Amino acid sequence: MNVFIVHAHPEPRSFSSALCWTATEQLRALGHEVRVSDLYADGFDPVASAADFGARKNPDYLVYALEQRHGYEAGTLAEDIRGEVAKLLWCDLLILNFPVFWFAPPAMLKGWIDRVLISGLTYGGTRFYDRGGLVGKRAMVSLTLGGRPHMFGPDAIHGPLDDMLRPLLRGTLAYTGLTVLPPFVGWHVPYISEAERAQILVDYRRHLTRLDTLAPLRFPSLDDFDAKLHPKVASHV
Amino acid sequence: MNVFIVHAHPEPRSFSSALCWTATEQLRALGHEVRVSDLYADGFDPVASAADFGARKNPDYLVYALEQRHGYEAGTLAEDIRGEVAKLLWCDLLILNFPVFWFAPPAMLKGWIDRVLISGLTYGGTRFYDRGGLVGKRAMVSLTLGGRPHMFGPDAIHGPLDDMLRPLLRGTLAYTGLTVLPPFVGWHVPYISEAERAQILVDYRRHLTRLDTLAPLRFPSLDDFDAKLHPKVASHV
Repeated sequence: MNVFIVHAHPEPRSFSSALCWTATEQLRALGHEVRVSDLYADGFDPVASAADFGARKNPDYLVYALEQRHGYEAGTLAEDIRGEVAKLLWCDLLILNFPVFWFAPPAMLKGWIDRVLISGLTYGGTRFYDRGGLVGKRAMVSLTLGGRPHMFGPDAIHGPLDDMLRPLLRGTLAYTGLTVLPPFVGWHVPYISEAERAQILVDYRRHLTRLDTLAPLRFPSLDDFDAKLHPKVASHV
Repeated sequence: MNVFIVHAHPEPRSFSSALCWTATEQLRALGHEVRVSDLYADGFDPVASAADFGARKNPDYLVYALEQRHGYEAGTLAEDIRGEVAKLLWCDLLILNFPVFWFAPPAMLKGWIDRVLISGLTYGGTRFYDRGGLVGKRAMVSLTLGGRPHMFGPDAIHGPLDDMLRPLLRGTLAYTGLTVLPPFVGWHVPYISEAERAQILVDYRRHLTRLDTLAPLRFPSLDDFDAKLHPKVASHV
């Protein structure tokens, strides 16, 4: 299996970074190929802008998604985007590895999503969810949090974690057709002992050895919607 | 009323930009003071990093939130952050104005959130939600979308819009104690006529004249949780 880890943490010795490098080592030990984009180390530019495109389809007015589509087809996307897209197409499993900032990925990783998940290639028209451009590949997020497990859930102060991660899990990964595995979460990381952190790394290694046994998260199927994306049968009473 | 609009769109002539400048004009006509941070025009840097801090509390290991707290107290935050924080503290109403990229703000705006909503000032410890640092101020998002209204809702292909915006509305704005007004949404913007877009601007002007009549969104109260953030009474049966 080819695994592409996209990692974004501003401190190279952070526990999030330890998760990234633990996964790299563990997955290689299991016989997989692993490539890592360490966005902070690479100085990745997260800003989607006109500078991402060479010859523009419309030089006078920027519609980012349309220029992505045009630039991908014409081979004129910025070099850093092309490099990331090549790794994305190469991989069987995409892992996004990050600390939660404001219940979401840091801007550095959000910018990777904005710039690399190219319109036309990864989605477009009614090619999304189970008809998205990346159908057949899998994805997983591995994240670190300040919070504790009891702060997330139906009754909990922040509600269910999967709901907080919805724009990422559903609106991004599932949207492009990726099969989304359950997140791996390092809870309460800034406040726990070294021994507890070491245990999380042990748990993560175990998690990575049994990816094939994990039931993917469930998301909508376009089969349940008509051509204008109205539900064929109302399921909500 | 002092209004601070944070705007992030890579095309200066975009409809999202038209919403920003329409709001500026309308709110001034209503007698309010308005300041705008046009993040793309300003070349704002959205990357949270060690470069955001002068004298570090811990120069050897970066814990971003701790350095925010230290840098704010010591007055050693990067100059661009201090400028944005001053506008945030000045305002009574914060408006985030952006196009939805991947069911979320563009990285440019996410980075403003990461860098400007300073730990210690806007939240910290159990100072969040209705005890957050920005209690007493209001916030609103004005966004543009490719989708149509029927694609969002309980039965709809993408689920309720407020659920998609949860990390922003709840995990960011409400988290800091802001009173969150209902979003203003420009639907299906890339695909509609000039006349339809003009009507959205008319609707937005009307929306802005009646902000005081809009019922804020509802979020958890820390009064319903104990000191360890366990619910005092389980509401979910």
